[in-house]
Amino acid sequence: MAKEENLILLDCWASMYGMRVRIALAEKGIPYEYREEDLWNKTQLLLSMNPVYKRVPVLIHNGKPICESSIIVEYIDQVWNHKSPLFPASDDASGRARARFWTDFINNKLYQTGRKLYTTKGEEHEASRSEFIECLKLLQGELGDKPYFGGESFGYLDVSLIPFYSWFQVYGTYGSIDIEHECPELIAWAKRCIREKESVSNTLPDSPKVFAFVQDVRKR
Amino acid sequence: MAKEENLILLDCWASMYGMRVRIALAEKGIPYEYREEDLWNKTQLLLSMNPVYKRVPVLIHNGKPICESSIIVEYIDQVWNHKSPLFPASDDASGRARARFWTDFINNKLYQTGRKLYTTKGEEHEASRSEFIECLKLLQGELGDKPYFGGESFGYLDVSLIPFYSWFQVYGTYGSIDIEHECPELIAWAKRCIREKESVSNTLPDSPKVFAFVQDVRKR
Repeated sequence: MAKEENLILLDCWASMYGMRVRIALAEKGIPYEYREEDLWNKTQLLLSMNPVYKRVPVLIHNGKPICESSIIVEYIDQVWNHKSPLFPASDDASGRARARFWTDFINNKLYQTGRKLYTTKGEEHEASRSEFIECLKLLQGELGDKPYFGGESFGYLDVSLIPFYSWFQVYGTYGSIDIEHECPELIAWAKRCIREKESVSNTLPDSPKVFAFVQDVRKR
Repeated sequence: MAKEENLILLDCWASMYGMRVRIALAEKGIPYEYREEDLWNKTQLLLSMNPVYKRVPVLIHNGKPICESSIIVEYIDQVWNHKSPLFPASDDASGRARARFWTDFINNKLYQTGRKLYTTKGEEHEASRSEFIECLKLLQGELGDKPYFGGESFGYLDVSLIPFYSWFQVYGTYGSIDIEHECPELIAWAKRCIREKESVSNTLPDSPKVFAFVQDVRKR
C-alpha cells in the first residue's frame, strides 16, 4: 500500500459479511487498521460512514466509505489488482454474471433462511429448515466437480460463501440439520478452503465461539 | 449484433426490473426477441432458464441465461461496450461501488417498501409510508445537483431507478403520498429522463395501465 493510503475496516468479528472483506484483504496482502464495533453501541464513525444501513462492514479508503460486503470485495479486487484476482477475467462476462448471481443468492436467500433457523418457531421454522437445505444443495450443484467455485483457483464466490461455514454449527444445531450428511461435497470444499488458504484459516473464527455469540444475541 | 448472435428477453411489460433491461438494450441499440410471460402461467423456458427464482427478466444470450436485472444490465454494458457506456469508467472504482450500492438499495429497500404500500394495512402500512418517502429522499440526496445519477450523462443508476417512475401513481395512490411535493427534484429528474432519452420514453408504460395491472394483481 502506498504511504499516503489509509485503510480502515469497521467490522464485527462474528460477521460473515465482515469476514469476506478480511479474507479479500488477506488474499491481496493489504495492511489495514481493524476496528471492532460493538453492535449494541455503534460508534459515531460507523453511523456517519454508513448512514443508510448503519451496519458493518464498512471499508474506509482514504476517508471514503465503501459499504456492503459484496460491493467492498469487488472494489478491493479492482483497486488492488496486482495479485490474487478474485473476479472472473474481464472478458468472461458470463462468468462474472454467474459469480454475482450466486453471491446475491447467498446475501438474500441463504442468509435470510439461515437466520430463521434460530429466530423462528413452529411452521415457519420447519419451512426454513427445508429451504436452508435446498439453498445449500443449489450451491453444491453450482460447485459441481470443481475444487473451487472460482474453478481451479479460489475466487469471488468462494470468498462470498466460505464465512458461512463458521456459522454451520449454529445452523445445524438450531435447524437440527446434519449438513455434512446433506451436502458432503460442500463440506469437502469448505475444508479444502481452510486447508489451502491461509486467508481463510486465519480469518474464520471457531464455530463454538460463533455459537456462543448467537446464544448471546438471542438472549438480548 | 453479429449474425450468429441470438438474444431473447423473457419479460413482463409491467416489471420495473424488465424495463431496466429493455432500456439498457435500447441505449445500446441491440436488436432482440421480446417474449411476454404470463406471470400466472409461466413458460417451461422461463422455469428452466431461471430455476432458482423462476421470475422475469431473463436474458438468453446464445442459449445461456443471465438472471436478475441489475446483473443483466451490467452484463449488457460489458458485452456491448461499443456505445452508451452505462457504468462509471473502469478506473473509477469508487463510482462503481456507489452505483452498485444504490442499485442494491433500490432492489431491496425501495422495492420492498413500495410493495407494502399496496399489500399491507394499519400500522405496517403507516410505517411503510414514512419509510418509502425516506427512501425517495435518500435517492434525491444522492442525485444532488447533477442532471443524472450518472453525472452529465444517463448511467447505470438512472437505468436502475427510472422504471419505478411508471409505478409512482401506484405508490402515490395506495400510500396517499404526493411524491412530487415530497421530492420535486427527483420528479424533475424523471421528467428529464423521459424528455431526453428515447430509450426511456419508448419503454415506460403509461402510469394508469400499471395502476390497472396492480389492481388486477391485488384481486388475485
